Order: sequence, then structure tokens, then C-alpha cells
Amino acid sequence: MEHELKEIIRKCDLAIKQEDFDFLMNYYTEDAVLVVKPGMVANGKAEINKAFIAIAAYFKNSIEPKQGEMMILEAGDTALVLSQTLLASDKEETTYSMERKATYVFRKNTEGEWLCAIDNSYGTELIGIDKI
Amino acid sequence: MEHELKEIIRKCDLAIKQEDFDFLMNYYTEDAVLVVKPGMVANGKAEINKAFIAIAAYFKNSIEPKQGEMMILEAGDTALVLSQTLLASDKEETTYSMERKATYVFRKNTEGEWLCAIDNSYGTELIGIDKI
Repeated sequence: MEHELKEIIRKCDLAIKQEDFDFLMNYYTEDAVLVVKPGMVANGKAEINKAFIAIAAYFKNSIEPKQGEMMILEAGDTALVLSQTLLASDKEETTYSMERKATYVFRKNTEGEWLCAIDNSYGTELIGIDKI
Repeated sequence: MEHELKEIIRKCDLAIKQEDFDFLMNYYTEDAVLVVKPGMVANGKAEINKAFIAIAAYFKNSIEPKQGEMMILEAGDTALVLSQTLLASDKEETTYSMERKATYVFRKNTEGEWLCAIDNSYGTELIGIDKI
């Protein structure tokens, strides 16, 4: 059976494509962290929402994230998702990789819903980059 | 200031070197997951303890893990550690990489202590490997 996190991540990817960030924020914890780019993080829903607006604009409002191969490691109410993240957009992108090996940490809340606590699409590529 | 998780991981690395797995288990959650090798996980402290005994034997009781560059992403009581993990041993190892880009997920318990929930020294290399 497909892991329920796969469906949740699909919904999030669609919300990013549709720029429905209010809906997207339902899938983040209050104190979530998003790695916007190497060297820059957004802390908490308000900052993450703003960051997604800026990311959408950077990609000429045409960003479309998809997940390829995925591996989920689950320990009780905590899950680490390792995922091949594929980004498509109308922008000719040269600065940031459009094919990433992402690391997402999800937490199950008391209602049994999985929420993203750490959203790091850059995966282990961040190692060695100055503190963020 | 150094992040307190760095000191905890140093203690764990030393415990692995000294094969003091009872002490090491103090730093894992009850339902923790350890990726023993690609395709094999240990679930819970009892299995993880056994796995460490097997890993130590595999490396001729001479394993010495060290961390190089590290990046810590923290979201409230959840932290993702991305770390260059360097393994040394007397065994001439050819099957598994001795230089890894690891992903460790830690959770802070109600006493404020960080415990490892997901121990995956293989990082995003697991992507594409059959379900574990």
C-alpha cells in the first residue's frame, strides 16, 4: 500500500504549482523550517508563506515540483522522507539544481495528521555550507 | 556557540568505538529506526542494539565513526542533522562507503533531552533502493 505521506506530498506539490499557499500552509507545523536556498532558511508559517511567494516569482510563476523515487523512514510520530525532487519551470535555471535529492521531516500531530516540520529540498548538499 | 547535538553525537560516536551499546541506547527513542545497510532497517532499541553488535563484528571490532562538516536544521523539538560521517576500521571495506553524507533526525523529549529517532548514515543514497 502506498504510504499516506506520498499523497500528502502530491497535494503540496499541486498547491505549490497552483500557488495556493494558504492551503499549503495546512501541511506545515507552526515552527516549521524551510530551506529557501543554501544559506537561507524561513522559520515558521508566516516566513515560509512569504518565501513560497518569492520562490514562485523567481520561477516566473511557472514552478511545478514533482517527486520521483521516494524512500520513507518512519519512527512512531516522526518520518524522514528521502525524495528525488524534480522541478520544472519556464525559467531557464542555472543557479539552482532542478533535480534534487530532498530530505523532508514530517511529524504526526495529536489528530494523527502528518505535518512537515523540516522542508529541505537540497538534502545533504547543504553540508559544508556556512551556518544558516 | 556549538549546537548541543554536536556533543551528543560525539558521545554516541565514542560509545560505538568503545562498543558501549547500553550507554549508546540512552540516546535513541524507544521506537527509533536505524538503517543498518541499504535494504535493512532495525526498529526499536532492542533491534538497534543487536544491529550495532553485528556492525561492530563486521568491522572486526575496530569501527571508529567521526563526523566532519555538519549542518543542523531545527524546528522546535525536531532536528535534522546533515553530516559528513567518516568511518575508520581495520577491515578493508569495499562494499559500503566509509565516507557518507548522513541524515539523522533527533527529537527533544519532555525532559529537554535530544534523542535520535531516525539514524540513516546512508543519507539520500537510499533513494531508488527497494522498499525497506
